[in-house]
Amino acid sequence: MNQPTHPLDLATALEPIGENLWRGHTEPSYANMVGPFGGTIAATLIQAALVHPARLGDPVAFTVNFAGPLPDGDFTVSARAVRTTRSTQHWLIELGRDEETVATATAVFALRRESWSSTEARFPSAPAASSIPRFPALERHAWTRCYEMRFVKGAPNFGSKIPAPDTETIMWMRDAPPRPLDFVSLTALCDAFIPGRLFLRRPKWTPFATVSMTNYYHADTAMLAAHGSRELLGVARGLQIRNGYTDQAGELWTPEGELLATTYQTCYFKD
Amino acid sequence: MNQPTHPLDLATALEPIGENLWRGHTEPSYANMVGPFGGTIAATLIQAALVHPARLGDPVAFTVNFAGPLPDGDFTVSARAVRTTRSTQHWLIELGRDEETVATATAVFALRRESWSSTEARFPSAPAASSIPRFPALERHAWTRCYEMRFVKGAPNFGSKIPAPDTETIMWMRDAPPRPLDFVSLTALCDAFIPGRLFLRRPKWTPFATVSMTNYYHADTAMLAAHGSRELLGVARGLQIRNGYTDQAGELWTPEGELLATTYQTCYFKD
Repeated sequence: MNQPTHPLDLATALEPIGENLWRGHTEPSYANMVGPFGGTIAATLIQAALVHPARLGDPVAFTVNFAGPLPDGDFTVSARAVRTTRSTQHWLIELGRDEETVATATAVFALRRESWSSTEARFPSAPAASSIPRFPALERHAWTRCYEMRFVKGAPNFGSKIPAPDTETIMWMRDAPPRPLDFVSLTALCDAFIPGRLFLRRPKWTPFATVSMTNYYHADTAMLAAHGSRELLGVARGLQIRNGYTDQAGELWTPEGELLATTYQTCYFKD
Repeated sequence: MNQPTHPLDLATALEPIGENLWRGHTEPSYANMVGPFGGTIAATLIQAALVHPARLGDPVAFTVNFAGPLPDGDFTVSARAVRTTRSTQHWLIELGRDEETVATATAVFALRRESWSSTEARFPSAPAASSIPRFPALERHAWTRCYEMRFVKGAPNFGSKIPAPDTETIMWMRDAPPRPLDFVSLTALCDAFIPGRLFLRRPKWTPFATVSMTNYYHADTAMLAAHGSRELLGVARGLQIRNGYTDQAGELWTPEGELLATTYQTCYFKD
């Protein structure tokens, strides 16, 4: 195997150090205000199941809970298949640092068979990615340099002080530099929507952090490989902002209108 | 404490049998085709954190993964607070039977403070619950007798063989007999939408089971207590049916338009 050179592969690299146990390390390219971008933490947790020798099939559902800040440096990831049947596999995954749990995750993997299928969500109309300028990275969030973001609607509006009419963001997004899509990068992309839904409606800076994210993967390995390194169309909306927490429901589409993943999260904010 | 008499309290009762460990037992009222209704399994798992002596605050996010069938009888539930800060608490929860993991769950609890708040989802218009007849229980699903269900849109259509135009269900729902709302009953209600989104679009019976469900709780204990035992307005939609899995996104509203919870799940189906 060649040494990985893409920053996402460096950020999510895991070195086996025991049964069900790996060592990883934070990658400065994906730094956020405190510790790394949550999307790379999520991607590292699912990576542990993806590279596990007992892995069965592809991920169908994945939940990550962010319990505390991750300081720069080494960390450990444990991943245990708690139950495997002929066609499904259930995982418990934990990321630790200095004897403390930093993140927990569960994943359901499955061998999927072709079936009657139907996309019920509406594919949003959007001008081609190539017609929209790349959004400049956010200075205090280094990780935003690792994504090409081209906003159709609902771009960050911190500076304007004018609330957006709703919480919807529609954006073209892909890794920078481009990288063939797989479950690792798709997982990180699920957490790459900016700004937080709160900020669109109340454009005033405040501490903000994803607390829990759940992804449903509607694509298999072959569909992701067929997509390659092209842009995805992301859509995100908020449903409820209340008492220090703000939610988000998102979709990731191919330009052809295939829904690859749906993603949900709730974030803490300081009022 | 009085002995519980409501069937939901019997179904979710936990007897402490060790540190972080409880014993529960299935309750025939909530039987499904194989084992109990998943909503009561979910409610039993969150119950373990709710009754735990170390509990901090109210649940904000909860994910349950159904790994295998639960035979009638006793089971064990383990719940461990893996990290507690001043205002948040992260839980790992497992339900076991005969040395096998039947379900896993994670929960994030938090002490919430009043903040700027805004409901961004659209409250659906619906005639009053009292104006809609109660839907008859489904014969093969005993648990549906434990809920009053009054359909505004998207009622089960197995018999008709005519696909619904979309996957949306809007329904009034509450416990039968009525029971004051709390996080236990709200959790079960999140899984009480019928029919599966697949069946609305393809009204042909096929084996079907929820694999993973994630709830975000937007209400605190006081809001739920204020609601009492009145009906909730539930909304559910599907986004993607593909290769043996079908998803659902749902909302649970008070009649006054307060969004108490949002709920997401993916289900396996046999083609």
